[in-house]
Amino acid sequence: MGPALMSSPEPAPPVGIVMGSDSDWPTMRAAAVALDEFGVRWEARVLSAHRTPRAMLDWAGAAAGRGVRVVVAGAGGAAHLPGMVASATVLPVIGVPVPLAHLDGMDSLLSIVQMPAGVPVATVSIGGARNAGLLAVRILAASDPALARAMERFQSGLAETVATKDAALAARAREDAAGG
Amino acid sequence: MGPALMSSPEPAPPVGIVMGSDSDWPTMRAAAVALDEFGVRWEARVLSAHRTPRAMLDWAGAAAGRGVRVVVAGAGGAAHLPGMVASATVLPVIGVPVPLAHLDGMDSLLSIVQMPAGVPVATVSIGGARNAGLLAVRILAASDPALARAMERFQSGLAETVATKDAALAARAREDAAGG
Amino acid sequence: MGPALMSSPEPAPPVGIVMGSDSDWPTMRAAAVALDEFGVRWEARVLSAHRTPRAMLDWAGAAAGRGVRVVVAGAGGAAHLPGMVASATVLPVIGVPVPLAHLDGMDSLLSIVQMPAGVPVATVSIGGARNAGLLAVRILAASDPALARAMERFQSGLAETVATKDAALAARAREDAAGG
Amino acid sequence: MGPALMSSPEPAPPVGIVMGSDSDWPTMRAAAVALDEFGVRWEARVLSAHRTPRAMLDWAGAAAGRGVRVVVAGAGGAAHLPGMVASATVLPVIGVPVPLAHLDGMDSLLSIVQMPAGVPVATVSIGGARNAGLLAVRILAASDPALARAMERFQSGLAETVATKDAALAARAREDAAGG
Amino acid sequence: MGPALMSSPEPAPPVGIVMGSDSDWPTMRAAAVALDEFGVRWEARVLSAHRTPRAMLDWAGAAAGRGVRVVVAGAGGAAHLPGMVASATVLPVIGVPVPLAHLDGMDSLLSIVQMPAGVPVATVSIGGARNAGLLAVRILAASDPALARAMERFQSGLAETVATKDAALAARAREDAAGG
Amino acid sequence: MGPALMSSPEPAPPVGIVMGSDSDWPTMRAAAVALDEFGVRWEARVLSAHRTPRAMLDWAGAAAGRGVRVVVAGAGGAAHLPGMVASATVLPVIGVPVPLAHLDGMDSLLSIVQMPAGVPVATVSIGGARNAGLLAVRILAASDPALARAMERFQSGLAETVATKDAALAARAREDAAGG
Amino acid sequence: MGPALMSSPEPAPPVGIVMGSDSDWPTMRAAAVALDEFGVRWEARVLSAHRTPRAMLDWAGAAAGRGVRVVVAGAGGAAHLPGMVASATVLPVIGVPVPLAHLDGMDSLLSIVQMPAGVPVATVSIGGARNAGLLAVRILAASDPALARAMERFQSGLAETVATKDAALAARAREDAAGG
Amino acid sequence: MGPALMSSPEPAPPVGIVMGSDSDWPTMRAAAVALDEFGVRWEARVLSAHRTPRAMLDWAGAAAGRGVRVVVAGAGGAAHLPGMVASATVLPVIGVPVPLAHLDGMDSLLSIVQMPAGVPVATVSIGGARNAGLLAVRILAASDPALARAMERFQSGLAETVATKDAALAARAREDAAGG
Repeated sequence: MGPALMSSPEPAPPVGIVMGSDSDWPTMRAAAVALDEFGVRWEARVLSAHRTPRAMLDWAGAAAGRGVRVVVAGAGGAAHLPGMVASATVLPVIGVPVPLAHLDGMDSLLSIVQMPAGVPVATVSIGGARNAGLLAVRILAASDPALARAMERFQSGLAETVATKDAALAARAREDAAGG
Repeated sequence: MGPALMSSPEPAPPVGIVMGSDSDWPTMRAAAVALDEFGVRWEARVLSAHRTPRAMLDWAGAAAGRGVRVVVAGAGGAAHLPGMVASATVLPVIGVPVPLAHLDGMDSLLSIVQMPAGVPVATVSIGGARNAGLLAVRILAASDPALARAMERFQSGLAETVATKDAALAARAREDAAGG
Repeated sequence: MGPALMSSPEPAPPVGIVMGSDSDWPTMRAAAVALDEFGVRWEARVLSAHRTPRAMLDWAGAAAGRGVRVVVAGAGGAAHLPGMVASATVLPVIGVPVPLAHLDGMDSLLSIVQMPAGVPVATVSIGGARNAGLLAVRILAASDPALARAMERFQSGLAETVATKDAALAARAREDAAGG
Repeated sequence: MGPALMSSPEPAPPVGIVMGSDSDWPTMRAAAVALDEFGVRWEARVLSAHRTPRAMLDWAGAAAGRGVRVVVAGAGGAAHLPGMVASATVLPVIGVPVPLAHLDGMDSLLSIVQMPAGVPVATVSIGGARNAGLLAVRILAASDPALARAMERFQSGLAETVATKDAALAARAREDAAGG
Repeated sequence: MGPALMSSPEPAPPVGIVMGSDSDWPTMRAAAVALDEFGVRWEARVLSAHRTPRAMLDWAGAAAGRGVRVVVAGAGGAAHLPGMVASATVLPVIGVPVPLAHLDGMDSLLSIVQMPAGVPVATVSIGGARNAGLLAVRILAASDPALARAMERFQSGLAETVATKDAALAARAREDAAGG
Repeated sequence: MGPALMSSPEPAPPVGIVMGSDSDWPTMRAAAVALDEFGVRWEARVLSAHRTPRAMLDWAGAAAGRGVRVVVAGAGGAAHLPGMVASATVLPVIGVPVPLAHLDGMDSLLSIVQMPAGVPVATVSIGGARNAGLLAVRILAASDPALARAMERFQSGLAETVATKDAALAARAREDAAGG
Repeated sequence: MGPALMSSPEPAPPVGIVMGSDSDWPTMRAAAVALDEFGVRWEARVLSAHRTPRAMLDWAGAAAGRGVRVVVAGAGGAAHLPGMVASATVLPVIGVPVPLAHLDGMDSLLSIVQMPAGVPVATVSIGGARNAGLLAVRILAASDPALARAMERFQSGLAETVATKDAALAARAREDAAGG
Repeated sequence: MGPALMSSPEPAPPVGIVMGSDSDWPTMRAAAVALDEFGVRWEARVLSAHRTPRAMLDWAGAAAGRGVRVVVAGAGGAAHLPGMVASATVLPVIGVPVPLAHLDGMDSLLSIVQMPAGVPVATVSIGGARNAGLLAVRILAASDPALARAMERFQSGLAETVATKDAALAARAREDAAGG
């Protein structure tokens, strides 16, 4: 499941993952991992709303034409990247609030989710890059029956994991009770 | 642009708008208005995570099969509807935090956006039902070039509105300055 | 004081402890320990509102019939488990806000406590699983005089502990003053 | 369904509703209304943690012996009444955070819910006195099959109300769409 | 003290006041009033980070060259305008958090003040447009001795107003005491 | 119980009430009323930390020498007056967080209560000027047995008021139940 | 400067330091240290509002008669101790919000400072026990000229420390600049 | 680029960096580093609003006359230094909220940014001393074309850094994908 990266001359992968700094990659990588699990190709870019505003708008403006169909954008603090990308494209943009050293991501969340009427950003939880990847899959699956079936299998797998944990807890709780 | 409502025997409209109470309709109606502006059909349902949990899961579980492609779900307070609908469908679910009498929608926002890994909800701003409708259009437009062009025209229209307001402000500011 | 776990064919224990993931057990275990101190039997289950919604509703719907009389439910983030269990049972449901990596449990608290009229959840403090267990004992004790007397002894014990700490502080404070 | 009030020589009603000031009654009254709907008798008292601390402790200490089985306590701001009542009784105490002029009830909520280990308060939503009444019914119903059945009927009624609102929304949404 | 507005062919006034919508003008007008009090010319523009991102960057990029020396930018919610303008100019940018219908301006404040290292925004209080105007005067006065003297006189005037209010309070407090 | 105001040549009254603007008087007046109830004389001053910093420090520095024994200081927003007065006197300073148009007094509270080690401010609730007056009485009463007895009577009066309200609630609750 | 502790038959020391648990002593100890610096005697007690409510009220009710003149009370979470002590004494009560594992002391602060009209608590900063001790000294100094002079010397000492740090910073900043 | 420190007889450097304690230097140093990068001289002072209020006002009152043109002031908790300095000078004052042990800098931010009308403080992000230095450069550059060009080069440098990171991320993401 090799991702097509940004130097590819062929059509762009369907998901673009953008972030303001490579320091966001350890958080944002989980979106890429989720996409890989579904065999959905992606490209990852460092684009800064504040340091390279025009390059950021250029990338956003060209994305749909290049074949990108969903954008995942992560940013922290006064997090402007998701909203600015959304202003320059018709594609659905998923925003990931990246928590910084202070305020535990609350500033990131409010800066991303409280967009004015006209330009929506689909916001996920603080640090929730994995869910951003899964949301991108759901969006693509809305017009791709095979991907929709894969998501069904994934959700069944979540349920099975819960059943396994349920059984494991039974054993563990028995032991805790015996020993406690 | 008549909406197909819930008694329709024919295929479901592509967008389902659900809410926990009809008291949410004055907020959620803005999603329907936005969809109407793009000629996207919708159905509106009152489904309560807490009062009709099984009916809610049944609707969510059947939605994709009926032809729904995006769900918009609004709820307030300990707002569980968007996340519970998302748990029972593979469709992308857009959550609208409805502000209630206390806490100004902060409880609604956190209850919707902070979903655990595995089950994302695409959250918009507090009371941001219009943006929920526009986000649904963007999602549908990702596989519908005509709708994508309509969104481009809409965004151009937003820009023109700003230009008009800019001119109007010039006049208004001159007057304020002369009179102030 | 062995807990009756979930595979028991005999009547269910009076308290069911449910959580969305086994990662919540280190927090939720304190409820089981408190129940053990009063000789109240319990069962522990991993049931996820978001990953196994129907299994969760099934368990909740059957709990009263099986002999469960109080439910303790712990969850974090957009914490829907306590409220969803409450929607499917007539039993009193005690919610424990489990703190996650961000926001220090404030999202968990608001997602649990701010339930809409009609479906209450008895919420305790963030991470307050021990108090959830003690609240379950108080609820059972409301119709069990022996258990009520045990709670009286427990509360007397709390008072004695304070008296012991009071004496210990006197010595410690004297030393700190002499040495400081 | 006449409530037995505080001068009654006969056994106390099973639910005591206490509040720090009669200015809390417009909020707390909803608990009494809910109890009346289930035919559960109640008494209502103004008892102040801060203005009549000993009278408050006396009432709390005597409540179980008089026949009270559940206490509902409402308070606002630095809301100490629910926790102080809980310190002086073995009964389950339900706390209602009453919102005051500032901070929208957040101070009331935290002052009630964040109780230390040993003395739990079953906290409901800000201003959620109706849910406090319903929670008291659930607690009593845990040892009263007839009351449990009444709660089942009540919950079925909630579901029917949702169905009625669902139908009404369909009509209303059609009109809004036709006229909008 | 007529403001030079945006159609002026001559050099731009030293202060540019920008906002995302003309609905911000009732808040932002106070900045213009403060500048008028010091005889500092200004221009006012509606420029939207989200609806006209390129026009906004164009204005910001050209501002210094046109003669603008300080920018005052007001925005609300996910308030990106001040930070985006700051990204495209070397001028000092003063941000005014405009409070919207929810969250009382806290989202606006955090979205403006929490800028990443490299691109500062000089943030004033929620709704503090008058102070934004006064801060612009202080910045210009740092290289304009006459303006600095005017600011000194202004601050002396503030002190005199306090003295007047102090005397008025004495009378009023006497009356209140006599009548109370 | 006439207050000695600021022009008095005789010894200053024991309590000084200071505020940043006469617009704070409607809030702060409750402190004066409470002092009047105990026959404690006061003076009221408008002194601004930000507009008349030296006059404010001069008043604070001279207060103890003039006979003032307790200061009550009210301020809102970035509320610096109580802390600055405390920095220039050895007297106990009571701070009243005055709520302004935004943030409901939370900014005022934190700006007053979070003083660094070395310079304490005795902070009361948001808008709690009456309690500030009562706290001043308690401080004076710590070395004035007659005033201490008056405070005892006052607290007995509070308890009597609660008893009266308790009786009134009984009647009101009976009526509500009969009519509801 | 040996503190007179609680078993002393002679008159009580002028300051009583009370806390809900000996786990609060590491925080509260700073109040004792500050009092020692001024030669003010104190006693320290563990008294719990929730675990020993009557013993706590008894201590508070007897304090003034025993010779205590100021109470310092620390508590965390749903922090009821300072307010409850204040309800049972005419003495000034200083509240110290002790931060617990979650919410960083915000719950403690609001539970202490937001007292209803009639019963004030003089609240200091989160974890601010040293300032509580200094505030107690200021209150005692209001009727003790020698103690007032000691506080003047203390405040002069603070100023000297700042001057020393100012000089040290000059050297340090030079080095940083040379080496950076 | 040696900084001229406070003992210099020659004209003061254009930027004064002040803080309440030398413990703030590790945070505030980043402002000095940023100024050094632009060759802008600075002086650093420890001046406390609460411990040396008159010395602080004296420094602020003399700053403009000595040649200082911008002040950077850092403080934490009930952070009064920036606002008090602003009250005693006509210079632009930049406030840096320094985060302390509790509340993550939110108290510092609100205490600095929420200044009343008349006395603005240009507030940057929590802990954002580097941006404070850069904002001081922008203010000086508004009347210094050479400094303005240096800022343009600096901002170009930021853009180049983003491009470098963008390329590095491509490689890193490829590896993560291959190995993950």
